[in-house]
Amino acid sequence: MKKQILYLLKNGYPQAISGESICKALGVSRTSIWKHIQALRKDGYEIMAQPNVGYRLVSVPDFLYPEEVTYNLTTNFLGRTVYYFKEANSTNQIAKDLAIQGVADGSLVIAEAQSAGRGRLSRGWFSPYGKGIWCSVILYPKINPVEVPPITLLVSVAIAQAIMEVVGIKAGIKWPNDIYLKGRKVCGILTEMGAEMERVRYLVLGIGLNVNIEAGDFPPFLKEVATSLKIESGRSVNRLRLLQATLKELEKLYLVWLEEGFTPILHQWKKLCVHLPGLVRLSSLKESWVGWVEDVDLSGALLLRLSTGEIRRFIAGEISLRGVT
Amino acid sequence: MKKQILYLLKNGYPQAISGESICKALGVSRTSIWKHIQALRKDGYEIMAQPNVGYRLVSVPDFLYPEEVTYNLTTNFLGRTVYYFKEANSTNQIAKDLAIQGVADGSLVIAEAQSAGRGRLSRGWFSPYGKGIWCSVILYPKINPVEVPPITLLVSVAIAQAIMEVVGIKAGIKWPNDIYLKGRKVCGILTEMGAEMERVRYLVLGIGLNVNIEAGDFPPFLKEVATSLKIESGRSVNRLRLLQATLKELEKLYLVWLEEGFTPILHQWKKLCVHLPGLVRLSSLKESWVGWVEDVDLSGALLLRLSTGEIRRFIAGEISLRGVT
Repeated sequence: MKKQILYLLKNGYPQAISGESICKALGVSRTSIWKHIQALRKDGYEIMAQPNVGYRLVSVPDFLYPEEVTYNLTTNFLGRTVYYFKEANSTNQIAKDLAIQGVADGSLVIAEAQSAGRGRLSRGWFSPYGKGIWCSVILYPKINPVEVPPITLLVSVAIAQAIMEVVGIKAGIKWPNDIYLKGRKVCGILTEMGAEMERVRYLVLGIGLNVNIEAGDFPPFLKEVATSLKIESGRSVNRLRLLQATLKELEKLYLVWLEEGFTPILHQWKKLCVHLPGLVRLSSLKESWVGWVEDVDLSGALLLRLSTGEIRRFIAGEISLRGVT
Repeated sequence: MKKQILYLLKNGYPQAISGESICKALGVSRTSIWKHIQALRKDGYEIMAQPNVGYRLVSVPDFLYPEEVTYNLTTNFLGRTVYYFKEANSTNQIAKDLAIQGVADGSLVIAEAQSAGRGRLSRGWFSPYGKGIWCSVILYPKINPVEVPPITLLVSVAIAQAIMEVVGIKAGIKWPNDIYLKGRKVCGILTEMGAEMERVRYLVLGIGLNVNIEAGDFPPFLKEVATSLKIESGRSVNRLRLLQATLKELEKLYLVWLEEGFTPILHQWKKLCVHLPGLVRLSSLKESWVGWVEDVDLSGALLLRLSTGEIRRFIAGEISLRGVT
């Protein structure tokens, strides 16, 4: 009901809509409407009530509420079901639990803050309240687990393109899927899956995108290596528009991948990659190599030419552009 | 306490052990010992009590109790922690839940019966009470998800070797990991994993081994395609010895794989494979191919020479030896 009243208010915007017409449209009493208006105000919606005129929506709060995310969302399935939390331990953790329960394909888990946000390899992810897009997408592609790595590159392309579209700045990608602005990380992606040997049961695409974090917000150990869209663009960014643009890009690329394979997406990924070609240091848990990035292949693997001239193929690892020599 | 009394009885076997010496060894009263003896009898242990002599273990029940599985087990970690159920929905399902909770590496989940035993691709697995080895092993290898497929072949080698050792009959393997006796399936393996893109979080190796199932036990649709060790060997097989031998072989091969890679295990697998070389039909969900099996490579993939002469590599699929032409 609250959602429907909000819908009517938005449709009427910027005009007011009379209490009577809301009553008629939804078949409820004026008292009931008043209660829901109060609830909406508590959620942060500014609603003006004028006697003999009606209710007018003045402003929408800066939260990623399901009603906001799905309002005017033009995707077919991605993000159409939203699980929203003011605070969560980790959206990926919640998404995995939901995926096991079999929730809708394309379901989205959003938190305004994460108390135990996770990055790759058990690292943490700084996820302050209301200042980023901390979310996870659940997908059930009918594929073999070995076919999964390209999707993690695909997600980074979708986000980089959404940033360009909404913020107008060009982000770069570091293999496999970290997104950088002027040498500092602005977004991380953590892909997880549940699988049998022959088929993926679910994929969870975790996104941590630093939107309106201020330079002073970052803890000391992140100050030199992390940034946000606000810091780099000099202005606050509408998280809702950015999230909707990301969902739209992601769905588009995901469907291209399922239908045409990775070739067209790899082409876009390469244009966004900041070290192709380039000299990098690639580190695994045990070793590290310095080499020239020759290419990234159709399975998402990195081809590195070592100083011996040998070309070596890597399916995982951490790339560093600094400290190469 | 029950476990410790059982241990003393077994150590004394075939001699009786006096109530007094049990009291001394464990520091408990005779009444307490009597209660535990009664509990053991309820579990199916036959224990003779003779006045002035003591307690004597007469026989052990045919259940895969944790105390039995771990007694005289010579593995280092595999099967040293056992989660035992008289009946479970699916040991793989329980094992996945336990793996997420982070139970010990090598933990074993056993059920005497499964109400919803699962095979590959959501098929069921017939798991009647006390007549098979229905179990799942939890492992946490530090590897990338793409390195996982060989382990599913490794498990089939371990089981075939344990069958040879304990039952003395030669089982054959159908790619990737079904175990056959005279053209009928005697064992299936269902490997599942939880993973990030770059590392496996857990592996669950589900084993369904038909041990003492009688021909008449199988439902009609399985009669022509399934068999058991008892049917083929003509006698009941000690499930406990077979499980312990399987755990031992599995641990040995797993450690070889982690340290030396898949080459030595693939060598053994090929000797057990029933269609290398051979003409087979390979079916995926959508298509099927007939061809000559040329090889299985180090990533566990099947190389099939089609009638066009082309060699095609398969990472998944279902092989059929019948109905090839």
